Amino acid sequence: MARLFHVPLSPFCRKVRLSLAEKKIEVELVEERYWEADPDFLRRNPAAKVPVLKLDGKTMAESAAICEYIEETRPEPSLMPKQADARYEVRRLVGWFDDKFHNEVTSKLLYERVNKKVMGQGYPDSRNVKAGAKAIKFHLDYMAWLLDHRRWLAGDVMTLADFTAAAHLSALDYISDVDWNRSAAVKDWYAKIKSRPAFRSILADQIPGFRPPPHYADLDF
Amino acid sequence: MARLFHVPLSPFCRKVRLSLAEKKIEVELVEERYWEADPDFLRRNPAAKVPVLKLDGKTMAESAAICEYIEETRPEPSLMPKQADARYEVRRLVGWFDDKFHNEVTSKLLYERVNKKVMGQGYPDSRNVKAGAKAIKFHLDYMAWLLDHRRWLAGDVMTLADFTAAAHLSALDYISDVDWNRSAAVKDWYAKIKSRPAFRSILADQIPGFRPPPHYADLDF
Repeated sequence: MARLFHVPLSPFCRKVRLSLAEKKIEVELVEERYWEADPDFLRRNPAAKVPVLKLDGKTMAESAAICEYIEETRPEPSLMPKQADARYEVRRLVGWFDDKFHNEVTSKLLYERVNKKVMGQGYPDSRNVKAGAKAIKFHLDYMAWLLDHRRWLAGDVMTLADFTAAAHLSALDYISDVDWNRSAAVKDWYAKIKSRPAFRSILADQIPGFRPPPHYADLDF
Repeated sequence: MARLFHVPLSPFCRKVRLSLAEKKIEVELVEERYWEADPDFLRRNPAAKVPVLKLDGKTMAESAAICEYIEETRPEPSLMPKQADARYEVRRLVGWFDDKFHNEVTSKLLYERVNKKVMGQGYPDSRNVKAGAKAIKFHLDYMAWLLDHRRWLAGDVMTLADFTAAAHLSALDYISDVDWNRSAAVKDWYAKIKSRPAFRSILADQIPGFRPPPHYADLDF
């Protein structure tokens, strides 16, 4: 069976979990305190990051590379369109969320509020939290703008771009940092993606010391 | 003709320039002071980052998405192997350099020494410069370890992984921040890649206020 070394709220791990689940690849989840840089783990990934996936007899790192590999070896159900320009748009949005959204929002809210505590690195820096809370509004508006003329973020079919965005937003939703009232289009999009069977494992996550809000796992939030 | 909005020392722009040049796609280079967030530029890329490439009537952002698009629409000469596991390894290394190396080295050395000055953001933070100078040693050793049993970084053929690494290292070499004496294998690899015609435009870059060391453009450095 596949094995994923992960932490539950990592958006990069969640993206891989969603891809695996959508393609019905069974996986054993192993929580990895990667910041402790255990030598066994460093052998698996010298980059000292999660996710690390054992699949097909290989040990793989870097979520973007992992998701492309899964897509190429298990093309159905597809998370990538066939046309080069549609594929470009999916990858652009994956980069948007994993780079820009991550730097401006996820790292400022989730890492300040949760990771610091879990890793024993002290209290949240309120300037970062404030900056993240401001930036997420811009991003939700950008998503609303995309969804104004598209059914899904990258076009008319659900793709890896949707899973990437949902991976970040679901982790932030666990700590109540997403204002779902800002855009009906974004809320509808999240309701659609949240109700997929692939999302179940993520909605069942429980992080000791952090209780999710009641709406977190509620499909009618 | 294709048009690339870029800054000369950006490793992400250099990676795209190398891909275009290797595939003999002529491109007009336009320097873009992206940090000034000019409205015209924001319309091209709301992420407010370079590179932005105009190609095939489209305006594209995110270097990873751009390079995959170029590869899919102009497959020869190839910068990506055909097998899924070899493609995974290329993408893992692209992620290694564009994420880990970028965070630990490029942003600590190049952005402190050059970008801050160019953007009028003051003086380098010596703690960052020190951390970057320490981290690059680990990365050069990791490259040496890879090259100990491979001709190129991701395997036996030159790929986008080599261009990505060379994009970062060439930008750092412009400010003399690479110790080429640390590993003969890494130096040989860089000499090979530096002598490719695709590299010429990068070796001709001149940034006002920053003169490159004499070895920068020397193929026998």
